[in-house]
Amino acid sequence: MQYRPAMPGGPTQPDDSHLTPWSPLPAFPAHLHAAAAHIRLACFDVDGTLTDGRLYYDREGNESKAYFVHDGLGLKLLQKHGIHPVLITARNSQSALKRGADLGIDTQIAVGDKLASVQALCAQHGIGLDQVAFMGDDLPDLAPLCHVGLAVAPANAHPWVAERVHWQTRAEGGRGAARELCDVLLAAQGRIDAVLAGFGA
Amino acid sequence: MQYRPAMPGGPTQPDDSHLTPWSPLPAFPAHLHAAAAHIRLACFDVDGTLTDGRLYYDREGNESKAYFVHDGLGLKLLQKHGIHPVLITARNSQSALKRGADLGIDTQIAVGDKLASVQALCAQHGIGLDQVAFMGDDLPDLAPLCHVGLAVAPANAHPWVAERVHWQTRAEGGRGAARELCDVLLAAQGRIDAVLAGFGA
Amino acid sequence: MQYRPAMPGGPTQPDDSHLTPWSPLPAFPAHLHAAAAHIRLACFDVDGTLTDGRLYYDREGNESKAYFVHDGLGLKLLQKHGIHPVLITARNSQSALKRGADLGIDTQIAVGDKLASVQALCAQHGIGLDQVAFMGDDLPDLAPLCHVGLAVAPANAHPWVAERVHWQTRAEGGRGAARELCDVLLAAQGRIDAVLAGFGA
Amino acid sequence: MQYRPAMPGGPTQPDDSHLTPWSPLPAFPAHLHAAAAHIRLACFDVDGTLTDGRLYYDREGNESKAYFVHDGLGLKLLQKHGIHPVLITARNSQSALKRGADLGIDTQIAVGDKLASVQALCAQHGIGLDQVAFMGDDLPDLAPLCHVGLAVAPANAHPWVAERVHWQTRAEGGRGAARELCDVLLAAQGRIDAVLAGFGA
Repeated sequence: MQYRPAMPGGPTQPDDSHLTPWSPLPAFPAHLHAAAAHIRLACFDVDGTLTDGRLYYDREGNESKAYFVHDGLGLKLLQKHGIHPVLITARNSQSALKRGADLGIDTQIAVGDKLASVQALCAQHGIGLDQVAFMGDDLPDLAPLCHVGLAVAPANAHPWVAERVHWQTRAEGGRGAARELCDVLLAAQGRIDAVLAGFGA
Repeated sequence: MQYRPAMPGGPTQPDDSHLTPWSPLPAFPAHLHAAAAHIRLACFDVDGTLTDGRLYYDREGNESKAYFVHDGLGLKLLQKHGIHPVLITARNSQSALKRGADLGIDTQIAVGDKLASVQALCAQHGIGLDQVAFMGDDLPDLAPLCHVGLAVAPANAHPWVAERVHWQTRAEGGRGAARELCDVLLAAQGRIDAVLAGFGA
Repeated sequence: MQYRPAMPGGPTQPDDSHLTPWSPLPAFPAHLHAAAAHIRLACFDVDGTLTDGRLYYDREGNESKAYFVHDGLGLKLLQKHGIHPVLITARNSQSALKRGADLGIDTQIAVGDKLASVQALCAQHGIGLDQVAFMGDDLPDLAPLCHVGLAVAPANAHPWVAERVHWQTRAEGGRGAARELCDVLLAAQGRIDAVLAGFGA
Repeated sequence: MQYRPAMPGGPTQPDDSHLTPWSPLPAFPAHLHAAAAHIRLACFDVDGTLTDGRLYYDREGNESKAYFVHDGLGLKLLQKHGIHPVLITARNSQSALKRGADLGIDTQIAVGDKLASVQALCAQHGIGLDQVAFMGDDLPDLAPLCHVGLAVAPANAHPWVAERVHWQTRAEGGRGAARELCDVLLAAQGRIDAVLAGFGA
């Protein structure tokens, strides 16, 4: 792994050309490492998970919401490194559809039964629920969260969700929670060096 | 109450299939429990209560504002479990009207006298002011707050409001304050298990 | 001053019908009380002062920004109680013009020289610079801030401004800083009871 | 340097007409001062650096984002005082183009290889990479960050970036991180008095 070279006339740094890159795993519970290494499908709720839960209404009632650029990169990294990401929302959210399309990621909107949706995805990908990670923040996410191999909630999830998941991220929804899970999955599956190499680091 | 089953090859957890679900009541003042159990009508100011108080203006002066997805679910849960939610705003806010319509909730805009509005709702529902909860954050909410059975303000209410309510939520307006009151009302009326059962938990 | 009456069957509270209302003055430096009592004109920068400094650009480059509902009420209270509020911005901001119009408050946009603008307002109102409060957060506000009777900056003002004002609010720009100054001016001029009485409290 | 004059009837202050203005340098690592004094070109990533990383999607999928007014002034100050600022983003962001145009600053969008882009700018300006500052917050910024004379990340940069830069600002992206770097560059190049003089202070 390359590190920044010493600049002529610039700051000199200790020789850290062999820097061990940061890993999210030391902060991730040890008893969950095996589950994370096993994941092939990562499903994300949208409002409150990929967004901060704010629904912007204009005077005509058109709805906007804010996605987070770091989360988007995390989802693309999952895809590139062999973990299938999916957005699943109960709302009839055109913006979620567009966000998914921009990222090139499967997106399901107006989903009435998220658990059934996850089960169908498992059948389609030929995997078991134990190979699925699901991230959600409120009651409509409880059913899938209670049945997947890795159930994750953002830091600001509702208490009824927080007490039923395997792990809560340090970041809040729409502020890096999804990226935190992506990084954990990539790390647990030994992909950190490959990820960094893809960016010339 | 079901909890997440142990996953084959996944994390094992203590047998918590009989988990007692989280309740907001231990953090809610004991002397207010009876008042909360008595509420039939829950009225919410909009700007600063259901939103964070930000009014987004575009160059044409069109106004947008951000509602919070957790609050919306709380309002729908009240409705489903027998407490009537109403949005009441002094502003001529089309977005409030649309937000209320999306949630299927009564919404009154351009209200000049909020106390009179609450009194009319009481007459319509055949209840007394002691069966009304009102949540508001600034001076135009003082009149109804000073007359209802449960007067609540979000964490960031103006001091002149904060010193005149029965209770302040831990969450700020537009960031879960309304949901916190919804959860308290549902819990005080013994509806937590029914709420969770509705989501398969 | 009336306080919330005891509700039949509701919570009982100590008899606080003679509650002394909250005042911002104990937290406001004593040596500035006389200056605040003297103010007849209160000028507010817009971006970073009445907003949080965020400039929302859409793909066409149209600009939006977010005002704060509490600040708007503060500005209207000043006006009602004899202190003239004015918005002054260097930007050619249509949204500021519209926000001012919605509040019924004088608004000057595309102002090249804010000090000259304040001096002209003084001439128009027949007052001296010592009767002017100015609130601003960055370098274009320095000139007026260095010449008025009460120079105020929001909590998150730039250090070059913060070190040149008489007082910094606890609230940040666009999150109540302007309201905090409004409350101080109203309190210093003995208007708190009149303000509260206007809202039935 | 002029300070606020004592106001007749207003607050009196100690004679601080010779106030030494605030400098960001005491909080900036000493071993980086020489590198900062040497910078002629300052490149800024957009999403997460000049914005807080939020991508607002409306129902048609149109994207908005929020720039920070303090950062904009910092970029203009760099330009006025002889340091060339450039915005460089991998996204095909029309709003970045418009923001750059409003500030009168070079802006490159849809950049596939940011390091190549920086190298081309160096050739164009006849300077070396050691005279370049680059600020970025996520993996696509790693390549240029690892090769410039002053590599900077906002407070909330991804850990894989944070561990590879010379310095992290105290402010977050879109909340003053860029301004913090601008102030450091201006201070390191002895321009503080000239900056303040430009605003009549």
